[in-house]
Amino acid sequence: MDKMRLKLLYSDLKSDLEVIENELAAAVNSSSHLLNEASLHLLLAGGKRIRPVFVLLSAKFGNYSIESIKQVAVSVELIHMASLVHDDVIDDAETRRGRETVKSQWNNRVAMYTGDFLFAKAIEYITAVKNTYAHEVLSHTMVELCIGEIIQIEDKGFVDQTVRDYLRRIKRKTAILISASCELGAISSGADEKTVRRLKRFGYYVGMSFQIIDDILDFTSTEEELGKPAGGDLLQGNITLPVIYAKNDPTIHPLLQKVFDGEIEEREMQVLLDEIRQSDGIKRAKQISNMYLQKALHEVKQLPTNSAKKSLQNVALFMSKRNF
Amino acid sequence: MDKMRLKLLYSDLKSDLEVIENELAAAVNSSSHLLNEASLHLLLAGGKRIRPVFVLLSAKFGNYSIESIKQVAVSVELIHMASLVHDDVIDDAETRRGRETVKSQWNNRVAMYTGDFLFAKAIEYITAVKNTYAHEVLSHTMVELCIGEIIQIEDKGFVDQTVRDYLRRIKRKTAILISASCELGAISSGADEKTVRRLKRFGYYVGMSFQIIDDILDFTSTEEELGKPAGGDLLQGNITLPVIYAKNDPTIHPLLQKVFDGEIEEREMQVLLDEIRQSDGIKRAKQISNMYLQKALHEVKQLPTNSAKKSLQNVALFMSKRNF
Repeated sequence: MDKMRLKLLYSDLKSDLEVIENELAAAVNSSSHLLNEASLHLLLAGGKRIRPVFVLLSAKFGNYSIESIKQVAVSVELIHMASLVHDDVIDDAETRRGRETVKSQWNNRVAMYTGDFLFAKAIEYITAVKNTYAHEVLSHTMVELCIGEIIQIEDKGFVDQTVRDYLRRIKRKTAILISASCELGAISSGADEKTVRRLKRFGYYVGMSFQIIDDILDFTSTEEELGKPAGGDLLQGNITLPVIYAKNDPTIHPLLQKVFDGEIEEREMQVLLDEIRQSDGIKRAKQISNMYLQKALHEVKQLPTNSAKKSLQNVALFMSKRNF
Repeated sequence: MDKMRLKLLYSDLKSDLEVIENELAAAVNSSSHLLNEASLHLLLAGGKRIRPVFVLLSAKFGNYSIESIKQVAVSVELIHMASLVHDDVIDDAETRRGRETVKSQWNNRVAMYTGDFLFAKAIEYITAVKNTYAHEVLSHTMVELCIGEIIQIEDKGFVDQTVRDYLRRIKRKTAILISASCELGAISSGADEKTVRRLKRFGYYVGMSFQIIDDILDFTSTEEELGKPAGGDLLQGNITLPVIYAKNDPTIHPLLQKVFDGEIEEREMQVLLDEIRQSDGIKRAKQISNMYLQKALHEVKQLPTNSAKKSLQNVALFMSKRNF
């Protein structure tokens, strides 16, 4: 995603996002040198801080105070960071295998506990909000995220999965944390209940739309744009929406089977990716993403008018219309 | 530890512990088949449920109700279970290397997310207690636990560590969760502040005493008693109290260095273990453990008199006096 353009979208949040950035640095600071190094590395790698942005914008529908809302924004970003670290743990071991086993073992163990630490810190941060319901929302979100990760493993290479399986999975994997970011921002600033529920739904729709686009881009972007080879999801056995729509095509089906049997060759993989790109799977997936975007925009439209309303709309549009 | 004898110690908690056991089974139930299998396996493996016992006994100093306190007891046990799962994740990969890589990778990933899920569930359970301070205690405990794990990695093979390094490490690794179990049991049942603080300290002292004994037993027990080879801590690079006291012995020091250089042979390892067993390191470590036990008993003595007081005393004595 084009970070520069995104930042322009919420330029009025600039100084508040700097507060968040400093608070994130403070949050990962501990008495362990190793942990500080691991966390700081992660922090400096940056990220779009999309979830804090949703927290802040949602908080504008109540009594906005950066000093109190920053705790919530840091909390959701820490959860996002923790899940990224854990996603990488085992893959990392794989790529380093054979070359520097001990070091990769070491790194994996450190990475796992760094993830655990970030999760725990996230929970500690949310307790600054003296509202037990907010704690429930966050802990429930974490539970769902973890179930989502395991279901993603279960569903790997399961060719017969349905659109519904996919949607349920990305809800847990992505939508629920964005939804919680909006909800927690609203709750913590004391927005009225109707607005809280609306922002929660808005976040859910944006998250769904965003993840579907992400999964489409894994096929349609170049390796340069992605920063990793195209079709990576498929190679890892993850079946996404374009594939579910395209899988019954007579050219695609046998090649897919080869992927999951671990027998596909580089040349065949390129054929498969091209076939999927040219199939109507991409188009149909875009339609579903767009449907979620429309639902999100519909929610925004009904929110009370304030300075954040337009920004929410723009961020939603940007996230769902990006080209890479 | 002799589970039968321990159970006799708190036979009056029998039916309440059954409630906890059922609640634990319910807690790990999710919509993922794989996750259910992994969690259930862990649950059936059992455990002493020492932390729930401390929650229940501490709750007897307030308005005891199993229906409300069970949430807290389940919460702390889930955290304990999660940390056990994560402790095993990377070791597991190690032992299986070469033979069934894919399966061990798979299992590791599942184990990591199972641990994450249990952590998240623990947090979800504690939110049943409508007291934000209780949430703070638990999240802070988790943060410290994670820092402890990373510091344990940092300290591995660091021969020059001090008694203070060791004590700080086991505080985080073990004592803090037992301390939190006591504190949370007392807080959640509405015990008075003085009692809460006393139980918190009691748990800390018991935890310290218990971990030191555990580390001594790693040398003095047989493989049969431990269920794993004696001296395992040392082989993994973990330096415990007996070693810190014994390390300057002229026979022990060079052999220790060999362990950490990964150059020790089986025969030399047996010599090293025997030397440590015969050194005054064991005796001195026992003295420190006993000092913590006395402090724990001193706290108990000053608690209000009730049915749980004697049980707390007995469990503390049992945990610190066990032979394996």
